[in-house]
Amino acid sequence: MAIIVQKYGGSSVADTEKIKKVAEKVVNTHRKGNKVVVVVSAMGKTTDNLISLARQIHPSPPTREMDLLLSTGELVSVALLCMAIEKLGYEAEGLPGFFAGIRTDDAHTKARIKTVDTRRIIEELKKGKIVVVAGFQGLSPQENITTLGRGGSDLTAIAIAGALKAEICEIYTDVPGVFTTDPNLVPEAKIIPVISYKEMLEMASAGAKVMQSRAVEFAQKYHIPCVVKSTCQENGGTMVTEVDFKEGAIVSSVTLDDKQAKITFFNVPDKPGIAAKIFGALGDANINVDVIVQNVSTSGYTDLSFTVNITDMEKAYEISRKLGQELKCKDVTADNDIAKITVIGLGMMNHPGVAARMFKALADAGVNIEMISTSEIKISCIIRKGEGHKALKAVHQEFIR
Amino acid sequence: MAIIVQKYGGSSVADTEKIKKVAEKVVNTHRKGNKVVVVVSAMGKTTDNLISLARQIHPSPPTREMDLLLSTGELVSVALLCMAIEKLGYEAEGLPGFFAGIRTDDAHTKARIKTVDTRRIIEELKKGKIVVVAGFQGLSPQENITTLGRGGSDLTAIAIAGALKAEICEIYTDVPGVFTTDPNLVPEAKIIPVISYKEMLEMASAGAKVMQSRAVEFAQKYHIPCVVKSTCQENGGTMVTEVDFKEGAIVSSVTLDDKQAKITFFNVPDKPGIAAKIFGALGDANINVDVIVQNVSTSGYTDLSFTVNITDMEKAYEISRKLGQELKCKDVTADNDIAKITVIGLGMMNHPGVAARMFKALADAGVNIEMISTSEIKISCIIRKGEGHKALKAVHQEFIR
Repeated sequence: MAIIVQKYGGSSVADTEKIKKVAEKVVNTHRKGNKVVVVVSAMGKTTDNLISLARQIHPSPPTREMDLLLSTGELVSVALLCMAIEKLGYEAEGLPGFFAGIRTDDAHTKARIKTVDTRRIIEELKKGKIVVVAGFQGLSPQENITTLGRGGSDLTAIAIAGALKAEICEIYTDVPGVFTTDPNLVPEAKIIPVISYKEMLEMASAGAKVMQSRAVEFAQKYHIPCVVKSTCQENGGTMVTEVDFKEGAIVSSVTLDDKQAKITFFNVPDKPGIAAKIFGALGDANINVDVIVQNVSTSGYTDLSFTVNITDMEKAYEISRKLGQELKCKDVTADNDIAKITVIGLGMMNHPGVAARMFKALADAGVNIEMISTSEIKISCIIRKGEGHKALKAVHQEFIR
Repeated sequence: MAIIVQKYGGSSVADTEKIKKVAEKVVNTHRKGNKVVVVVSAMGKTTDNLISLARQIHPSPPTREMDLLLSTGELVSVALLCMAIEKLGYEAEGLPGFFAGIRTDDAHTKARIKTVDTRRIIEELKKGKIVVVAGFQGLSPQENITTLGRGGSDLTAIAIAGALKAEICEIYTDVPGVFTTDPNLVPEAKIIPVISYKEMLEMASAGAKVMQSRAVEFAQKYHIPCVVKSTCQENGGTMVTEVDFKEGAIVSSVTLDDKQAKITFFNVPDKPGIAAKIFGALGDANINVDVIVQNVSTSGYTDLSFTVNITDMEKAYEISRKLGQELKCKDVTADNDIAKITVIGLGMMNHPGVAARMFKALADAGVNIEMISTSEIKISCIIRKGEGHKALKAVHQEFIR
């Protein structure tokens, strides 16, 4: 008998009426003869409300207590969904993450799953029950409740699907699948029927909020097929799986991320160890750096720019200014008026024309490119924030038909 | 070093400002050189709100899921109080009931504590931390979260105090102690400085909402001294302890309970086994019977009355009507227009004048007595509900000066 793991996000369980609808979907899947494990997030804005409560008490709340606090949101969803399933006449077993065998490290608020002990889940499935697990949470080696970071319920679902060798992991959300770009910005955006883990990963880190990037990594590593689809529609959706070769379409999606900021060091001495010093200091401060560009050196000096998440800009700038003085740079600047536009597609490296087409589309639209960064399956350009929307439309038009 | 257990109820942690005040009290106790374990309830109306959410989904929500749902309220309080303590510069460890070693039976929504495994609490106390435990919850043998019934946080605090052999268990509430009667009804009510477990128990079951009656039973059984006091005042309060003899004042308190209903069987055959049949059937339906009065038999028939909680009246009446037909009674009636007034005091049985004084006070106030029930330390009279307030004032005036 097939095991199906379903994950329902916060918007799918935002109120009691929506929870009843989710219960119907779950029961329908169960009635088709599947063993069903459901992973749920906290209802709608619950997590934000809990964070604001904590801030009223402590400006930077201690992370272990934060995890205990945030874990309650998912418990409420689990209990209510179980009640809704039992109301339909089926047996449900609701499990907090820490009783469902989700063991993590002790990096509170962004813990990593170490193991999934599926004994309890399997035991309840054998009794014919529908198992409902609280997403986003686990248990540290010190027996404290941990959480897995924003979007962590995706990771819970994928990890359970992997550990149970589930047939599929269904990620239910409020959009009907993964789009070629943001349909709110570009109405011509289309749903991508099949996408590879790699592309999905680039999309997640390029700012598309479809699936948590760590969840996609996990799915890829353990070959767990997933489908991203809407809670409201029976069919459609985007299949995320192993795709090694795609004829025809090379670019599968275009994304825009306007939550970036750029730091630039002017006239850095071009010596070994300088980059290591700068990015070592940022890493120590737990700041993720995204795009890094260093210009060709002239007369022993170079300019070095990198982007960080906009929320880290102040901290990154402070660290950079100090380092700039130490390194005797001419100047260090911070700039949050930027956006990052990215095209993503498997096999892009074997089609050198893609980069040229992207740059031409931007030029034709009158958009200036400030930084460029490429990987095996993506090309990102940093542009002015105000030109983001125009750039997105132009590049999408060029590649997606 | 002395261990002190403090319990803060829902009104003491109703908002973040109040939680900060509680943190100060806790830290002050810790700074005096005590090891402190704090037990907290859910914030203000949280539990009621969660119950109403559940009812939107299921008219009679399954109890296991209900417990999972309700347990979240206390977790939020624990996390926020820990943050407030850490904000003051002290280390706190927040523990859900199920990690604090509270093991219960599996009677969901009204579970009984079986054992308290204090290893984790002691380990954290040894590290110099203030331990904050979620009240009202435990873990069943099947590893499901259970709750201990309304007022269950008192029980958690007492049980932990007993298991740790704490010096004292302090029950903080929004009133400055245990009063001789309800001060909202009788302004002359006074605080009782010392009261015995037995009297406290009678008060709890007579409708005074100061401490959960199961918590008082537990405190008595394991000789755990407690004090009931206000969160807002440093001194005062009521000490609940072993008191075997009290000179002078015999009546320590007077209570009024208007949440009672009376069922009467008219003309029941006065044969052995009839009462067993009636109260057996009510017990099977999980209905607690309070006062029972049977009149003297005349010509082989008698009238039998008893009171139940007003919320059980419909169910009790239905069962009684069926039994009444079976037993060929003349009539069975239900009446919720009643109240119960009770005087409580140690050694009352050795002072026969107490009953007479109570009856005279009622008669002088023009209050008719419908039923009388006595125990070793209390006398209860059932009267008309509308006369409750008048009766309470008169009886309090008679005994408390």
